[in-house]
Amino acid sequence: MKTADRRQELREKLLDAAERTISRRGLAALRVRDLAKEVGCALGAIYNVFPDLDSLIFEVNSRTLTAIERHFQKLVAANDERSPSRAAAIANLDRLAYGYLEFAAKNQLRWRALFDHRMEEGHKIPKWYRDRQRILFSLVETPLSTLRPELNDEERATFARTMFAAIHGVVSLGLDQKLMPLPLAVLRQQLSEIFDTLGAGLAPQKTPRSAGKQAGP
Amino acid sequence: MKTADRRQELREKLLDAAERTISRRGLAALRVRDLAKEVGCALGAIYNVFPDLDSLIFEVNSRTLTAIERHFQKLVAANDERSPSRAAAIANLDRLAYGYLEFAAKNQLRWRALFDHRMEEGHKIPKWYRDRQRILFSLVETPLSTLRPELNDEERATFARTMFAAIHGVVSLGLDQKLMPLPLAVLRQQLSEIFDTLGAGLAPQKTPRSAGKQAGP
Repeated sequence: MKTADRRQELREKLLDAAERTISRRGLAALRVRDLAKEVGCALGAIYNVFPDLDSLIFEVNSRTLTAIERHFQKLVAANDERSPSRAAAIANLDRLAYGYLEFAAKNQLRWRALFDHRMEEGHKIPKWYRDRQRILFSLVETPLSTLRPELNDEERATFARTMFAAIHGVVSLGLDQKLMPLPLAVLRQQLSEIFDTLGAGLAPQKTPRSAGKQAGP
Repeated sequence: MKTADRRQELREKLLDAAERTISRRGLAALRVRDLAKEVGCALGAIYNVFPDLDSLIFEVNSRTLTAIERHFQKLVAANDERSPSRAAAIANLDRLAYGYLEFAAKNQLRWRALFDHRMEEGHKIPKWYRDRQRILFSLVETPLSTLRPELNDEERATFARTMFAAIHGVVSLGLDQKLMPLPLAVLRQQLSEIFDTLGAGLAPQKTPRSAGKQAGP
């Protein structure tokens, strides 16, 4: 086997092992030493294929993003329309929100790793990973371009992330049971409540946007 | 000094020390050994006044909840009305959301400890702490009783927590810079966007609630 192939093989093995550990025991349980043992390589060999542990975690998290994306695409594809109505766009956002809750509930540890990853001092989120996130968010941006056609690309991108963050908050604190003990069925219903409220706010008959803004401190 | 007084004094000292550590270096930096050293007591003495580290963390987090509550009350009190209009109720919710962002941005480590606290296996959130959370949420429930008068007490309590979770998501992921590098000014603006949308959704001219629900998968 060529050196390049051997490197590639080791890379895949390490990623698979790290993914298993994170999925079963959580990001906090990930140790370079254990990974080396599991795939049967020297500790130093890991750093031949990954510059550091952060890089390896970004690769695993990227796999999780891909899994979420696939889950989303299944939910949305079935309902794709050429020129979607506002109702269809809201329904699509609704599906994405539910889909997110479903994925998170079924893959809790792997999903939490996306948010619990604290990089070493001085490290930055790599550009390829930000691009990876962007593809995922474009699924949220599509219905938003129907619902808020006045936003330019940058505004829509930012708003999509904010909408996502709001849904993420409900899913995350809900699954965490931090604010109240909450069965999944109630969480689904609450997601629907907040989503109806957001959806109604995105509907054409909303109050002038300036009203809410002037009210701020 | 009586034994009870001495116990009380040690308790306060330990709480002050733990609060300082959490505020300056975060919850993960909290060690019983360091606390004992800092207040100058034996390791075992800590367990005379707190049954375990979890109890001590709940007490510190309760202080943080009190600080948030005071911050909220300042923001809302100035605008209290006997029978508030819908617009005033939305404005109050808006102020609370901004106030939350302000508090979180200024007290990041202490605020994160509220959510990062993972209890030891088998431990439960104490009832007195849940009651403590409840007082805080009642500030969110008050404007909601104007905006959604059809909800009963339990529904309103749950919806207040869901609204909070949505705002928390935006603040938390925003301050974390996980989804995008986001200056505080943009975050404030995004909070305002999502809040306007929620506010518009809570306004009387909203679409029938069933529309959004039927659209779910």
